[in-house]
Amino acid sequence: MSASGPSATSDAGPLAIICGGGSLPAAVAEAAQRQGRPVLLFALQETAVEPSISSFPHHRLSVGQYGRFVRSAQAAGCRDVVAIGSLVRPSLWRLRFDLGGLRILPKVVRAYRHGDDGLLSRMGAILEADGFRLLGAHEVAPQILMPQGALGRAQPGDGDRADIRHGLALLRTMGPFDVGQAVVVSDNRVLAIEAAEGTDEMLARLAALRDADRIRARQGAGVLVKAPKPGQDRRFDLPSIGPRTVEGVARAGLAGIAVVAGSAIVAELDRIAAAADKAGIFVVGVSDDGNAP
Amino acid sequence: MSASGPSATSDAGPLAIICGGGSLPAAVAEAAQRQGRPVLLFALQETAVEPSISSFPHHRLSVGQYGRFVRSAQAAGCRDVVAIGSLVRPSLWRLRFDLGGLRILPKVVRAYRHGDDGLLSRMGAILEADGFRLLGAHEVAPQILMPQGALGRAQPGDGDRADIRHGLALLRTMGPFDVGQAVVVSDNRVLAIEAAEGTDEMLARLAALRDADRIRARQGAGVLVKAPKPGQDRRFDLPSIGPRTVEGVARAGLAGIAVVAGSAIVAELDRIAAAADKAGIFVVGVSDDGNAP
Repeated sequence: MSASGPSATSDAGPLAIICGGGSLPAAVAEAAQRQGRPVLLFALQETAVEPSISSFPHHRLSVGQYGRFVRSAQAAGCRDVVAIGSLVRPSLWRLRFDLGGLRILPKVVRAYRHGDDGLLSRMGAILEADGFRLLGAHEVAPQILMPQGALGRAQPGDGDRADIRHGLALLRTMGPFDVGQAVVVSDNRVLAIEAAEGTDEMLARLAALRDADRIRARQGAGVLVKAPKPGQDRRFDLPSIGPRTVEGVARAGLAGIAVVAGSAIVAELDRIAAAADKAGIFVVGVSDDGNAP
Repeated sequence: MSASGPSATSDAGPLAIICGGGSLPAAVAEAAQRQGRPVLLFALQETAVEPSISSFPHHRLSVGQYGRFVRSAQAAGCRDVVAIGSLVRPSLWRLRFDLGGLRILPKVVRAYRHGDDGLLSRMGAILEADGFRLLGAHEVAPQILMPQGALGRAQPGDGDRADIRHGLALLRTMGPFDVGQAVVVSDNRVLAIEAAEGTDEMLARLAALRDADRIRARQGAGVLVKAPKPGQDRRFDLPSIGPRTVEGVARAGLAGIAVVAGSAIVAELDRIAAAADKAGIFVVGVSDDGNAP
């Protein structure tokens, strides 16, 4: 482990950014560049199709081409690696592997069986065995972390605060099971728990249930609560929200969004705040136990 | 509380059965009749539309007509009440209330805010204040409870057993939060957790995720695990499975279903076993901790 900080540029070469889907990878790359750190992006062609990638030095490669990643990153002098963005888990059988990918495949398959946490920490160990250092995106771009307090004009009320505390307690309880980072609570009642389907789909389900008059939740009540799993490897998989999350929450007829401040990633703060104000919902960063800043 | 057992016919008059949707109400009515107990069915017109109701003495009424229920049940000499069958929670604002319904409305609305458990135990207290005795369907018809062991030919393997134990542990952990009675676990990974959407919709979601290649679960692996909530009022709301559950599990590409024996309702054992054998999935009653009988 180098004694220099994560954002040091002296001996660590360009920052390698493994890019999944969504707008986060470009936001992280831009933040690193602004701090004077050169970047080299590795866009996973299974998901990272955003045109914003192209404005940075980049390679495109498949999830299975780990060997190509190692060679290209080493040739460019990269030592620090960040992995960021959404990655819908591809079927292993559909991936094309290069030799480096095949070499680590047995480890990855074993990690696969142990849920997200196992897979992600294992990837960190694999990278380190090849001489890289895996960093969290928030370590190189702390400005993408959710701040304390509300992003837009709306603020949660007392009932919302109770829903937030209830949701955080449930997420804490489920932590050892390596499952969902998100729940929806309305008037103290748990309406939805996220597992394999992801946050967007969970919100779409609630919107459909409400349209069909199949949930007894007041319109304009209820909070989407997101928190990192206890013990989660924060270098890899912090919960994140974006403008699309705000739209999903509005469509589901909820009052707002609460995430743990400092433990969730929000690229595009301005767009999120604007979307929240337009929809009349709150987006708030809270402490671990749900209390106001 | 009468000293006579639940199935006593001497002084308790006909058994009043408040009927939600599905095939369970008629199965309970038939079981009670076979024990020599007369029945009087109250079919909730919001959901209980099964033609099978009509072959028993019955009234049709709305969820809001509690006053009419009390008068009719008392006039017929009913003392014991069973409530059984699915009830999609109707919007309070759409219900038509009679005077008796309006009288209990404030209590019901308060209970509404405290989740299922609060609502159901409150209803028990309301019925008892009016001189009735609320019984569990399994008390008058124990043959509708899930037995130990497999219903059809297929048996869970060692991996399935591990998934079952994992699912039961998660359900136990979530118990205090008055949420889902069902989860799906595959290769030790939690794929779905039921909340307001119900079991059928949770299974449909998994089938859709699999069709879209969005979950990393092997075809033919994974178990739907159902258990009662800890401390749940078993007179009202035991988990149940039916032939439709079997079809949903097959469509989701899972290996089988596990429910806690003696704590889940299965009407139509024969049809469930036939559907399971046809689909090649197991349906098994297990102990609280997931062990084989």
